[in-house]
Amino acid sequence: MQIAEPLQLAIDELSKLPSIGKKSALRLALHLLKSDKENVDNLVNAISDLKTKIQFCKNCFNISVDDLCSVCENPKRDRSMICVVEEASDIISIEKTNEYRGLYHVLGGVLSPLSGKSADNLNINELVKRVEKGSIKEIIIATNPDTEGETTSLYIFKLLKPFNLKVTRLARGLPIGGDLEFADDATIGRAVLGRIELL
Amino acid sequence: MQIAEPLQLAIDELSKLPSIGKKSALRLALHLLKSDKENVDNLVNAISDLKTKIQFCKNCFNISVDDLCSVCENPKRDRSMICVVEEASDIISIEKTNEYRGLYHVLGGVLSPLSGKSADNLNINELVKRVEKGSIKEIIIATNPDTEGETTSLYIFKLLKPFNLKVTRLARGLPIGGDLEFADDATIGRAVLGRIELL
Repeated sequence: MQIAEPLQLAIDELSKLPSIGKKSALRLALHLLKSDKENVDNLVNAISDLKTKIQFCKNCFNISVDDLCSVCENPKRDRSMICVVEEASDIISIEKTNEYRGLYHVLGGVLSPLSGKSADNLNINELVKRVEKGSIKEIIIATNPDTEGETTSLYIFKLLKPFNLKVTRLARGLPIGGDLEFADDATIGRAVLGRIELL
Repeated sequence: MQIAEPLQLAIDELSKLPSIGKKSALRLALHLLKSDKENVDNLVNAISDLKTKIQFCKNCFNISVDDLCSVCENPKRDRSMICVVEEASDIISIEKTNEYRGLYHVLGGVLSPLSGKSADNLNINELVKRVEKGSIKEIIIATNPDTEGETTSLYIFKLLKPFNLKVTRLARGLPIGGDLEFADDATIGRAVLGRIELL
């Protein structure tokens, strides 16, 4: 027996999504097949609208409905700070903490020679242009704490050095609620190096 | 910051799918946002086509593009046997084995008083009608080997008893490649009860 063509097509398309394999795709496709037409239409419309209604902020490349995103348009945000992140999803993570009130800049990835991502493929020039305008006092580099994130962080740091800004990056150390016994050597090492005086 | 409305909507709809939570839905939505329009269109069309181009076989309730599914229409299939399964996906699993050449019948679930599924909600009457036509010699009940599957199996067995058919069900025993040490008591017990003489 051959799987009906429209089902096979749906399985193929669904399994292209990240972390969805052939088996999960089959399960999702059969679930959709059994769902009400209304539910499937809602899903299809929501996915289509993603591409038609959402754009990237002209200023910081965050996800936005308008030309400028809700962060850049918010008059209450501190316009002297920019937090540089790899992806727009990182902004959501940082916003959830309610600890940061400045602006953002999305790089759209990290420097990665292996996957062919050079500085030209990232929004690094646009960051420099924002800094050149002069009102920025601090840049917080919030790339991921892995090799590529650290490399990108260093690259941006060197690029921004001539502007005489405060350039910081997120603290490395023990995660809150963590346990020394289960932390890896590199993390404990960084936590020792970055120890903070109790006041 | 609020998440842009179209993105939030896509997250909500995606997280309604089985085994996809809010975090996976966010990841999928951001992936779709970064994908080419063509890829997203392909996915959207494939999902829409599921509901418009696929129907259920009038004979056995398998997934089908036409009135009759590819199994029911295939002249090479043995028309004296029906394998009764819970869901259309089970047909795909059995077909992959290449061990069965008869017809199928999809129940569309199992008897489950807790989730409000009674015999009237399943395609059991349609199975009896197929048997009444007279050409069927064997019914293989291939419901899942769990409590609800066993109950449904027993219910169908009693219903088909008057027709004087051979009614069988899939063998229970040790899975191929398994290890006695790791098999559960119930499986080993069934394997002992269902032991087969070596010839």
